[in-house]
Amino acid sequence: MSKKAVVLYSGGLDSTTCLAVAKADGFEPYAMSFAYGQRHEAELKVAKENARAMGAVEHLLVEFDLRRIGGSALTADIEVPKEGVGSDIPVTYVPARNTIFLSFALGWAEVLGAFDVFIGVNALDYSGYPDCRPEYVSAFQTMANLATKAAVEGAGHYRIHTPLINLTKAEIIRKGLALGVDYGRTHSCYDPTPEGLACGRCDSCRLRLKGFAEAGAEDPARYVARGDK
Amino acid sequence: MSKKAVVLYSGGLDSTTCLAVAKADGFEPYAMSFAYGQRHEAELKVAKENARAMGAVEHLLVEFDLRRIGGSALTADIEVPKEGVGSDIPVTYVPARNTIFLSFALGWAEVLGAFDVFIGVNALDYSGYPDCRPEYVSAFQTMANLATKAAVEGAGHYRIHTPLINLTKAEIIRKGLALGVDYGRTHSCYDPTPEGLACGRCDSCRLRLKGFAEAGAEDPARYVARGDK
Repeated sequence: MSKKAVVLYSGGLDSTTCLAVAKADGFEPYAMSFAYGQRHEAELKVAKENARAMGAVEHLLVEFDLRRIGGSALTADIEVPKEGVGSDIPVTYVPARNTIFLSFALGWAEVLGAFDVFIGVNALDYSGYPDCRPEYVSAFQTMANLATKAAVEGAGHYRIHTPLINLTKAEIIRKGLALGVDYGRTHSCYDPTPEGLACGRCDSCRLRLKGFAEAGAEDPARYVARGDK
Repeated sequence: MSKKAVVLYSGGLDSTTCLAVAKADGFEPYAMSFAYGQRHEAELKVAKENARAMGAVEHLLVEFDLRRIGGSALTADIEVPKEGVGSDIPVTYVPARNTIFLSFALGWAEVLGAFDVFIGVNALDYSGYPDCRPEYVSAFQTMANLATKAAVEGAGHYRIHTPLINLTKAEIIRKGLALGVDYGRTHSCYDPTPEGLACGRCDSCRLRLKGFAEAGAEDPARYVARGDK
């Protein structure tokens, strides 16, 4: 019998691959997206249009406005860096973002009777965000099992799945292609044009293009310009 | 020098007392409230009107709709129990609510440069919610210090303060009265009338009325009827 799982799904490359992995692992994926006032709302259009085609049983969009809190190039009037991936945690870091996302996922999981949550975080080819590391995810899982009625009453044990956490971007792309993911239906850019073209120069575009190059595959996304050229 | 602290503030008895304690402890309180589609939105009106009078430097209202997720008498079409406080976790439990609230508080704290978050949870005279227990709060704190750039880079250590956690409701009320809290400016009822009168019979009203009786004080809130009479 297949089991329900909540999958955090932004419409980007990683979360779309993560959704495909959850499905391939035999879960019924319930996809969850967030409109949080992000600069790159284009990803939500992609998420809405493609969730079911990508295998989701249901797609829930949760809306709140992190611009009220600010503190990030993705939610405040701070420029998105385009000069290449550095060694520090960049200004695109959004304070507590994955914690907020996983908290909503936990709530939905409990209502659905699911005990599995998938998040496509990645600790190799990534931007150095602290809430993408294994020790963070493990601490969230411990907290989740103390936070909820279902866990405390013994109905099950929550597990946060991170199938991409130790993969390079190229490995993620190869895995997704093997599972039939259509990467033309994903959006990664932090600073797209109003028409939804990727900038090709932000960290997210650079990591994506590098991944496709290393995987020996063609990125089907549409770019204004490619930082690698 | 006083330090900033984010205080979760619903406009209820506990969180208002918690705000007064944060201020008395020398913190500059930044009050945070949530419009999550709760049945008792009357509490928000009280919170908005009173945050500054109660000592908050700033008041931030975050809005999202947990009715999309449901699963609780406070957010779905499930009746609020009025027969008295039982021994099981009641249907007014909202899946992952405090986890969601604390996650937003963590994000705001990081942007403010604060490392202290206050939450008025209580593990004695309470409804048995798992996310009000010390072991839950401790696990959230551990996770918070792995989740955030400020903690990981060593700028400080997040601390979740729970000054009411081991107090009875009567002790909370006595503490608040000693700090000058005006409990006429608080709202506790889960199922108020459209005019904002408390029902007097839900768990929240019963715990409040019992607390005032034990504290030997008069509850200045306005009730339709009092479950204790």
